[in-house]
Amino acid sequence: MIIEIRERANKNLVRRLLMENDGVEVSYDGKQWAVISSSVRQVPKYFLPHAGRAIVCQTDVQLAGKSFYNGCREISFGPVRLGGSTGHTAVIAGPCAVESEQQIRQVAGVLREQGVKIFRAGCFKPRTSPYSFQGLGARGLELLARIREEFGLAIITEVRDATHVAAVIEHADIVQIGAKAMYDHGILRACGACQKPVLIKRGFGTTLQEFIQAAEFVLSGGNSNVVLCERGIRTFETKTRFTLDLCGVAYLKEHTNLPVVVDPSHAMGYAYGVPDLARAAVAMGIDGLLVEIHPDPANAKSDAAQQLNLPAWGVLLPSLRAVARSVGRQIV
Amino acid sequence: MIIEIRERANKNLVRRLLMENDGVEVSYDGKQWAVISSSVRQVPKYFLPHAGRAIVCQTDVQLAGKSFYNGCREISFGPVRLGGSTGHTAVIAGPCAVESEQQIRQVAGVLREQGVKIFRAGCFKPRTSPYSFQGLGARGLELLARIREEFGLAIITEVRDATHVAAVIEHADIVQIGAKAMYDHGILRACGACQKPVLIKRGFGTTLQEFIQAAEFVLSGGNSNVVLCERGIRTFETKTRFTLDLCGVAYLKEHTNLPVVVDPSHAMGYAYGVPDLARAAVAMGIDGLLVEIHPDPANAKSDAAQQLNLPAWGVLLPSLRAVARSVGRQIV
Amino acid sequence: MIIEIRERANKNLVRRLLMENDGVEVSYDGKQWAVISSSVRQVPKYFLPHAGRAIVCQTDVQLAGKSFYNGCREISFGPVRLGGSTGHTAVIAGPCAVESEQQIRQVAGVLREQGVKIFRAGCFKPRTSPYSFQGLGARGLELLARIREEFGLAIITEVRDATHVAAVIEHADIVQIGAKAMYDHGILRACGACQKPVLIKRGFGTTLQEFIQAAEFVLSGGNSNVVLCERGIRTFETKTRFTLDLCGVAYLKEHTNLPVVVDPSHAMGYAYGVPDLARAAVAMGIDGLLVEIHPDPANAKSDAAQQLNLPAWGVLLPSLRAVARSVGRQIV
Amino acid sequence: MIIEIRERANKNLVRRLLMENDGVEVSYDGKQWAVISSSVRQVPKYFLPHAGRAIVCQTDVQLAGKSFYNGCREISFGPVRLGGSTGHTAVIAGPCAVESEQQIRQVAGVLREQGVKIFRAGCFKPRTSPYSFQGLGARGLELLARIREEFGLAIITEVRDATHVAAVIEHADIVQIGAKAMYDHGILRACGACQKPVLIKRGFGTTLQEFIQAAEFVLSGGNSNVVLCERGIRTFETKTRFTLDLCGVAYLKEHTNLPVVVDPSHAMGYAYGVPDLARAAVAMGIDGLLVEIHPDPANAKSDAAQQLNLPAWGVLLPSLRAVARSVGRQIV
Repeated sequence: MIIEIRERANKNLVRRLLMENDGVEVSYDGKQWAVISSSVRQVPKYFLPHAGRAIVCQTDVQLAGKSFYNGCREISFGPVRLGGSTGHTAVIAGPCAVESEQQIRQVAGVLREQGVKIFRAGCFKPRTSPYSFQGLGARGLELLARIREEFGLAIITEVRDATHVAAVIEHADIVQIGAKAMYDHGILRACGACQKPVLIKRGFGTTLQEFIQAAEFVLSGGNSNVVLCERGIRTFETKTRFTLDLCGVAYLKEHTNLPVVVDPSHAMGYAYGVPDLARAAVAMGIDGLLVEIHPDPANAKSDAAQQLNLPAWGVLLPSLRAVARSVGRQIV
Repeated sequence: MIIEIRERANKNLVRRLLMENDGVEVSYDGKQWAVISSSVRQVPKYFLPHAGRAIVCQTDVQLAGKSFYNGCREISFGPVRLGGSTGHTAVIAGPCAVESEQQIRQVAGVLREQGVKIFRAGCFKPRTSPYSFQGLGARGLELLARIREEFGLAIITEVRDATHVAAVIEHADIVQIGAKAMYDHGILRACGACQKPVLIKRGFGTTLQEFIQAAEFVLSGGNSNVVLCERGIRTFETKTRFTLDLCGVAYLKEHTNLPVVVDPSHAMGYAYGVPDLARAAVAMGIDGLLVEIHPDPANAKSDAAQQLNLPAWGVLLPSLRAVARSVGRQIV
Repeated sequence: MIIEIRERANKNLVRRLLMENDGVEVSYDGKQWAVISSSVRQVPKYFLPHAGRAIVCQTDVQLAGKSFYNGCREISFGPVRLGGSTGHTAVIAGPCAVESEQQIRQVAGVLREQGVKIFRAGCFKPRTSPYSFQGLGARGLELLARIREEFGLAIITEVRDATHVAAVIEHADIVQIGAKAMYDHGILRACGACQKPVLIKRGFGTTLQEFIQAAEFVLSGGNSNVVLCERGIRTFETKTRFTLDLCGVAYLKEHTNLPVVVDPSHAMGYAYGVPDLARAAVAMGIDGLLVEIHPDPANAKSDAAQQLNLPAWGVLLPSLRAVARSVGRQIV
Repeated sequence: MIIEIRERANKNLVRRLLMENDGVEVSYDGKQWAVISSSVRQVPKYFLPHAGRAIVCQTDVQLAGKSFYNGCREISFGPVRLGGSTGHTAVIAGPCAVESEQQIRQVAGVLREQGVKIFRAGCFKPRTSPYSFQGLGARGLELLARIREEFGLAIITEVRDATHVAAVIEHADIVQIGAKAMYDHGILRACGACQKPVLIKRGFGTTLQEFIQAAEFVLSGGNSNVVLCERGIRTFETKTRFTLDLCGVAYLKEHTNLPVVVDPSHAMGYAYGVPDLARAAVAMGIDGLLVEIHPDPANAKSDAAQQLNLPAWGVLLPSLRAVARSVGRQIV
């Protein structure tokens, strides 16, 4: 449960409350809160005089839940505000991986012209084979830093494992925790200990409950800037790479207070389906959309089949604006 | 493969071609075609003089495939034309089951006022438990017939098993083959032998390949009026009833020539997510949308959680029209 | 719930009880029972004087559940007794489909020599493509009848849809309801109305709950001779045809009173894995094992990859006997 | 592909071969091998004079595949030899987590008496909720070190993320990479760089292909002591915690050269099914079996439902020996 700690609460009793119930203390909305195991359903007697509001949670979805904050958190995602009452659907675009300076400059130039504000590209690629391109690593982060300066774009890039999480937190505007890394406590704890916005991608074998609980690790660490990203789950259907779970998106919007981003590129796995799925996601009133684009998809070093080329992206973006308007929202 | 049969082809050789290769003869677009096993990749020598166009298919997706007809079939779905170049997204609405005359009259009245033209309701419910409401059966079909006459609505209703397929074909304007019945050869063959439009729902454990092959059973039987309906697949995620597979919808649009309908109600299983998912589906440019609505969902005899009440439906429909317009389509 | 009906209970009140609560009356163990919706948790007052034992069930698993009968039903499965306290694991073997008289005679001869007593082969094949072998149909049933007479083997064969269920019930010793047909009410009701043993295969997208409820349809129809067969479920893994759910088998043994048969052939989809999986299943103490064998698998008209040839089967069978003995059971 | 490097091969050309083809050099069986991308199907001309045996692999399953070594690797797993031609099925048992010294001493005492040689217990628990027991961490490793010394048991314990992989490698006899960590490059690389035996658990959403490729990361790093562990995958069935994929085990035995261990405890999630599944796995001729046991499961700090108590384990172990003997193997 979540218990508001009164301003002059006895610090020893706060400590006791947390220790006895596997809890942590976090700040939110100008107040202090003790978040303890959801199996506790009543404020312990000794703490009653020190407790303000007390919120019983049915499961360990606590800080992320609507019973804690019955709305959607507003988060500054790079230069963009999203969530809350902004009515914004933020577009995030860029190639799967940083391959060369020329490649990312070309994409960044197009995005700046189009008014897109967030640039994505991976440096540490979590490939499933050791015999394929693993990303440019630290050098990629440097190239992205130049893109930020020169083009004024916010940078989102992925952390693959705990060995380089500090470097990614330092260089990125938004830290992306990838689908294969979202159970990684080393990463989750490091992200909880900073204040950078964090976008957590749902693992392809991850239930919604576990997904939200990954966010709880970051939130309970003290970082309240968390965004969830649905990118497709693994099902029996293999004609498409994954299965985009928009029912899950509806669930997250109803039951959590976190902004939700949708990534149709990884879900579909083929460029042909991405525009329709992107429009579908925007029509749901999501907070952000992540699309993979590449100047020359056929020769991309990873995810070749699913990246849109730049002309296709040039056609898609205006149609997204039209769909967003039809549901009373605005693409930013 | 599919082989066009020239007008004056030798009938004995046609028969030989079909017998030797597990084939059937169908009419389409004013011509006769022999559809034989996809493992055959060349017109047999003896038939060459009698063959027109010859189409090699990689799998047993043949009549449904884009290599046979590289477009989308136009189908008259009750009073509504959809598919082809109509730009129509047909709305189909109504309760899960016929429960009483009053219940369906109330819904039908609302639909007529709104300009919706297709009414859905089940009479033979494929319940998973023998100790729950199984539908009104033949009496339900009679009640639906009255609705058609009085309200001018087309009727779509479900066939559960082969014992009553003839009755449903006789009374319905569109025959729905439900998710649990779509492998039923008794039903598929009966539907192939009539000319009524048939809507096949994808089984929740059914691959896209098998789904399209179910349509092939009807098409190869001689009925070319087939529509596919995605209604959610079963995955590891159980917070929602099923997982709506819009990646699959993108696949079907790309690889088949059949119109595609989406049913968000059964996928979500909860009314709260249906409006967002309905708008998402419409934004994809689908050919039809199927939504469950009920005058009193809380007391519905089946699917109580997922049916929209009439006021919620009254709010949803205009928003669907707006989304459809934003992608250059029209709700009918 | 399930209510024992006292011998001289008022028949009008029995009728009222059933009608008001979607119930049925069945005989079991020399007594009469009213099985009504599991949502009812108390015997209605008016029926109390007529009620004997009353069993509350948490879900619509009722007649199949351990709370109704806390053991495993003994069933005569052709000439073989299984379940109960027999300690038997019955072997069922034969080809996927009846292809010719010679083919099934060859297999039947081998089985008779080995002391195997139950012969399987399909006549109505539920193929997913209309352009492939669909089985010999009624002629196949006749051929199987000859096998029974000549070789003294019990025959199990599959019913595909309701159009021929009567013929299969008439000719088979055990009626198999296939994985794609197990939701078919036409079949389930026909099987409930006869007394032939029925083997229900779990659908590949079917939950254990739904699987058991399919059995409830037959049991509540009045036929208590039901056996469940696990044959693999559809998961994200496609290197094997399906995924054999032995956790599910453990669940069924713990929570139901029905004998359980395992079919490793359809689960694996490849002959190479069948022997290991067959031994695994036998080591679990299952009641029956179903294996596909064929004199010439490479040229089988269906399921070519997964059928064992006769020499491989000759090697496998003795090893099954050894494993069975090691867990205190006996292959019959 | 895999290319044997002749003894006096030109080192510059070796370097060129590796660099141009994303390759690595490893030792195996007293020889040097270049492992390069599987998309390469021919030895480059310039390298032909320096190449011995050349093995084309269809996918990036290379060092783990039967085309590289057509047998099963023998590995010393603590004091136990398994794989190869040993005919051993090694038992690994212990609690989910180290909770206290007393708890693990009690279990270790029982194991020593029974002749079990490998003790498992986790120190860094990859819990999905931040508000539950996370393990004793480094202190747990110290307690395990004492168990090894006092009881002469080999220790297997889990690494959760890259922040403590060095400590686990140092203290454990066998490093376990858990199901949630098996994509973690930080861990995989660290394990590849040491020579400790590594047991990789299959992720619950992980395909067999990805699973084997995780092993390739360790193998290609230079550590050839890798064992695969199947522990259940996530499917639509939720009556059991996961679905034990024994079809997958059959696949791994057929297609890889790595020993395979099965963990029925995590798959089932309930103690009642574990004995039957353990016997099933042993009957398959697996190389190792991992079972969770606890002196007081009801009060375990994690995985309470699935751990066997010590009397149940005392009953299970002899039955495993009997099943192993029936398939010509020996429990060690």
